[in-house]
Amino acid sequence: MNSFSRVPPGFRFHPTDEELVDYYLRKKITSTRIDLDVIKEVDLYKIEPWDLQELCRIGREEEDEWYFFSHKDKKYPSGTRTNRATTAGFWKATGRDKAVYSKHDLIGMRKTLVFYKGRAPHGLKSDWIMHEYRLETDPNGAHQARRRMGGV
Amino acid sequence: MNSFSRVPPGFRFHPTDEELVDYYLRKKITSTRIDLDVIKEVDLYKIEPWDLQELCRIGREEEDEWYFFSHKDKKYPSGTRTNRATTAGFWKATGRDKAVYSKHDLIGMRKTLVFYKGRAPHGLKSDWIMHEYRLETDPNGAHQARRRMGGV
Repeated sequence: MNSFSRVPPGFRFHPTDEELVDYYLRKKITSTRIDLDVIKEVDLYKIEPWDLQELCRIGREEEDEWYFFSHKDKKYPSGTRTNRATTAGFWKATGRDKAVYSKHDLIGMRKTLVFYKGRAPHGLKSDWIMHEYRLETDPNGAHQARRRMGGV
Repeated sequence: MNSFSRVPPGFRFHPTDEELVDYYLRKKITSTRIDLDVIKEVDLYKIEPWDLQELCRIGREEEDEWYFFSHKDKKYPSGTRTNRATTAGFWKATGRDKAVYSKHDLIGMRKTLVFYKGRAPHGLKSDWIMHEYRLETDPNGAHQARRRMGGV
């Protein structure tokens, strides 16, 4: 059946927010088979942003965006606050979450986060940006995040 | 083995000149199997540019570039001049051919053509542009062309 070990020449992975949420995130969460699954599963809290590049490589092209899936790690089992710290720093939300629609239906939300080196509430702002997607039907479930390196 | 009937979500076909020549054109000419073969075989001389769009559709996205493979049609069997006329008009070369390299090796050439409505040497210039690729090793062989619609 459909199975691909690599991306065929000429194809680039440039998913829309809708495709990320409605296809990839939904299937990742339900552990459904994905055609040409290029989104690696990682533990975001054990990996620094600059190490994701090698882990999440798609094809041979140089990219400035990487895609991965990571389960949320609860800082306090009883709470809803999420621990987004790594060894070298932490991810901090910025701006307002953006709604993701499929036609007219709200299917998910996109949160933007910036990586700071050091420890909260201090830390040095970096140029690493992550987009964290969640399904609207499953706000506390797993999430898929997309990280984009901004201009230095 | 590798077989795909459709392009997976999130993937766009944006090949480089090198990928078009070194992978797709080379395989088309030698009738070698292509993973996820999205390049249709058409008879360019029987199809008007505005009809290619429907024939060469890849995925569900709206595109402004289409890719196809067409065998060259010799106007005069003994000559090297190529007949690029359709019912409604003709393709006319413009500018200079561009070399296509793989690293430092010349692997092919890219010719740019413009579509004119009417009959040569007259005709009304349109905004349809085609890139015709040929292998450097097989200048009179089959070719693969890429058409891009320019701005109106």
